[in-house]
Amino acid sequence: MSTIEKLVESFRQFPGIGPRQAKRFVYFLLTRNPHFIDELSTHLKELKKEVSLCSTCFRFFDKRKISGNICATCDNQNRDKSKMMIVEKDVDLENIERSGAYKGLYFVLGGSVPVLEKEPERYVRSNELLERVEKNCEDKKCQEIILALSNNSDGDNTSRFLNEILSPLLEKYDFKISTLGRGLSTGTELEYSDSETIKNALENRH
Amino acid sequence: MSTIEKLVESFRQFPGIGPRQAKRFVYFLLTRNPHFIDELSTHLKELKKEVSLCSTCFRFFDKRKISGNICATCDNQNRDKSKMMIVEKDVDLENIERSGAYKGLYFVLGGSVPVLEKEPERYVRSNELLERVEKNCEDKKCQEIILALSNNSDGDNTSRFLNEILSPLLEKYDFKISTLGRGLSTGTELEYSDSETIKNALENRH
Amino acid sequence: MSTIEKLVESFRQFPGIGPRQAKRFVYFLLTRNPHFIDELSTHLKELKKEVSLCSTCFRFFDKRKISGNICATCDNQNRDKSKMMIVEKDVDLENIERSGAYKGLYFVLGGSVPVLEKEPERYVRSNELLERVEKNCEDKKCQEIILALSNNSDGDNTSRFLNEILSPLLEKYDFKISTLGRGLSTGTELEYSDSETIKNALENRH
Amino acid sequence: MSTIEKLVESFRQFPGIGPRQAKRFVYFLLTRNPHFIDELSTHLKELKKEVSLCSTCFRFFDKRKISGNICATCDNQNRDKSKMMIVEKDVDLENIERSGAYKGLYFVLGGSVPVLEKEPERYVRSNELLERVEKNCEDKKCQEIILALSNNSDGDNTSRFLNEILSPLLEKYDFKISTLGRGLSTGTELEYSDSETIKNALENRH
Repeated sequence: MSTIEKLVESFRQFPGIGPRQAKRFVYFLLTRNPHFIDELSTHLKELKKEVSLCSTCFRFFDKRKISGNICATCDNQNRDKSKMMIVEKDVDLENIERSGAYKGLYFVLGGSVPVLEKEPERYVRSNELLERVEKNCEDKKCQEIILALSNNSDGDNTSRFLNEILSPLLEKYDFKISTLGRGLSTGTELEYSDSETIKNALENRH
Repeated sequence: MSTIEKLVESFRQFPGIGPRQAKRFVYFLLTRNPHFIDELSTHLKELKKEVSLCSTCFRFFDKRKISGNICATCDNQNRDKSKMMIVEKDVDLENIERSGAYKGLYFVLGGSVPVLEKEPERYVRSNELLERVEKNCEDKKCQEIILALSNNSDGDNTSRFLNEILSPLLEKYDFKISTLGRGLSTGTELEYSDSETIKNALENRH
Repeated sequence: MSTIEKLVESFRQFPGIGPRQAKRFVYFLLTRNPHFIDELSTHLKELKKEVSLCSTCFRFFDKRKISGNICATCDNQNRDKSKMMIVEKDVDLENIERSGAYKGLYFVLGGSVPVLEKEPERYVRSNELLERVEKNCEDKKCQEIILALSNNSDGDNTSRFLNEILSPLLEKYDFKISTLGRGLSTGTELEYSDSETIKNALENRH
Repeated sequence: MSTIEKLVESFRQFPGIGPRQAKRFVYFLLTRNPHFIDELSTHLKELKKEVSLCSTCFRFFDKRKISGNICATCDNQNRDKSKMMIVEKDVDLENIERSGAYKGLYFVLGGSVPVLEKEPERYVRSNELLERVEKNCEDKKCQEIILALSNNSDGDNTSRFLNEILSPLLEKYDFKISTLGRGLSTGTELEYSDSETIKNALENRH
């Protein structure tokens, strides 16, 4: 395989990129000056060196801005330590931060559990989650764990799995597990809503 | 104006139809055999004759299937008479019935109140609503009024207006007004949710 | 079937209208004042009365604006009578007129011939076309017949059929049959062109 | 700027990539194993080393497959040397090859000239083109230069520029410049065609 073909193969694995766009990427790179590719190559090499995984919530953060292995959010004394929100991935966390609606802590699962998957532990940081929850409960800080998962079949499946593995801790400690509310999202019209959304909106009326 | 132009003008007022499709409709009719147009014309004439407005919930129903001026839902003794859901229009009601999630009664407003509108009464059946609620309350049947409006600015504005005109009855009688739950609708991913939806989903977590 | 259902059935036959929008049309009509429906019904009844089919080119025209049975274009002495363009339907003719690129005469086929159809005569005005061409040729006016059909399989099939039925006249009289040029249409980029378009663009280079 | 931010900036320059997807790319890379990033980084570094620009047509080709500085197409003795097609970029050339409709030679401009641009030479290989054409003409091989540019304003502008710079050679040598045919592209329906396409289709009828 030529280098062009190998690069096309690599870019095809990028999220949302098909074979055609992967090829356009390579031609785009060929027409850049060598400096652009050198820089890109160098930044890629440095990426993992300069980025750390927070030892508490498992989000990525810039090592050079923060000394230690804890991210700015986990380290922030003003966050509400009684709440821990479980999200699938970093971009979910960032989007929730952007909304300004949440002031508690986070835990990044690193993925979701596909339906019918027999080894869910391979997809999410289950051991790290149990350890974190246990520790928080011993410190008597944890009062609520919020499952902030997507409203689709993988999200539902991940939710089932998390409830299952957290149930022993639920019996042992005093905290609750909550799920994000479902119903009409912004812009939804009744005329075009699916039955599931109508059911949820009715159940969650207030 | 020619008949073609007049028909184009009429079809342009149909929901979702622009000038181009309106014209295609007219040419479509011209190429049909005369029987098709005659039938359409006759059915249109008969439409209002054969269709009644339910005197209780103000939805449309087939007069020939039901004697009297009350629709099948309002007449159904198995419906939960303690709940009344206010919807904007007939198609909303039909979509909610399709979900099978609701067993109470309905009231069709006939529209929504546009933002900044000075005469909201022109857009919705406010007098008929007040009369219906008063009557239900006197019968001690009404326990909950559910506002099932779209999650957009007109829906919110209509909601404000209804809360306002229902407030005197709220003080006089013992019932409550509820609103459909907001949050993640089916298929929503956290990564792409707007801030408002995230806020609602968080507030309505359970 | 109720009148509502019958009307839904009729509207579903309109071009581009599915069951859901057909139903919205009926509810839309129900909420209009009776005057709107009466007018629509009347205009529909009058449509065929006020509209004539041009006896020469078979397009529709407003009978009340023009006395006689010939449309304004066919009657216009400034049009180039040596050219006759065959189009599928009235809207094609109107779109070509809008371009201002053509000054000759027209003939409206009334449809296209589906691929594998055994009775093409049922779909297009073949007898009327032959009669018109024969007459024009006898008058020594016709020099070119332009097939202005869509660039898709039905258009190609219609083109084959027309070439076939016109071939006896081609031998008898002195005129030629031409086809609209194929190649890059406005906005086409080479990167995204299909092979057929590239082939045509190459063959028709100049 | 952190490495994450620098990489986001780099990916944003990729064709068709916005800030959001650029960020998803970086998070995608962070979750890959180090091997993936190392490979990508290495391939990028090797890209320019292993890829050559053909000294004749200026397309990119795999240096390791071909010794010398001429690509397989330019080196192929079966190609029709009397024709030279000028394309904007490598992917255009590949798409035309895929159509199988062309057997001549190519010249890759490396870009198009934006409308109102004062220094067109900065966008396209104009000197290299003139040199190539002159050489071909001296060898008495060049009979036709085909401008295969996109049918949009930049393509038209590039075409004007090329005609201008080639005009001295046109007077000196015996060859012609042709342009890809314009008209109905595959799937085009007359009803929805723009006026420009109709005009071209009419002019290029045959």
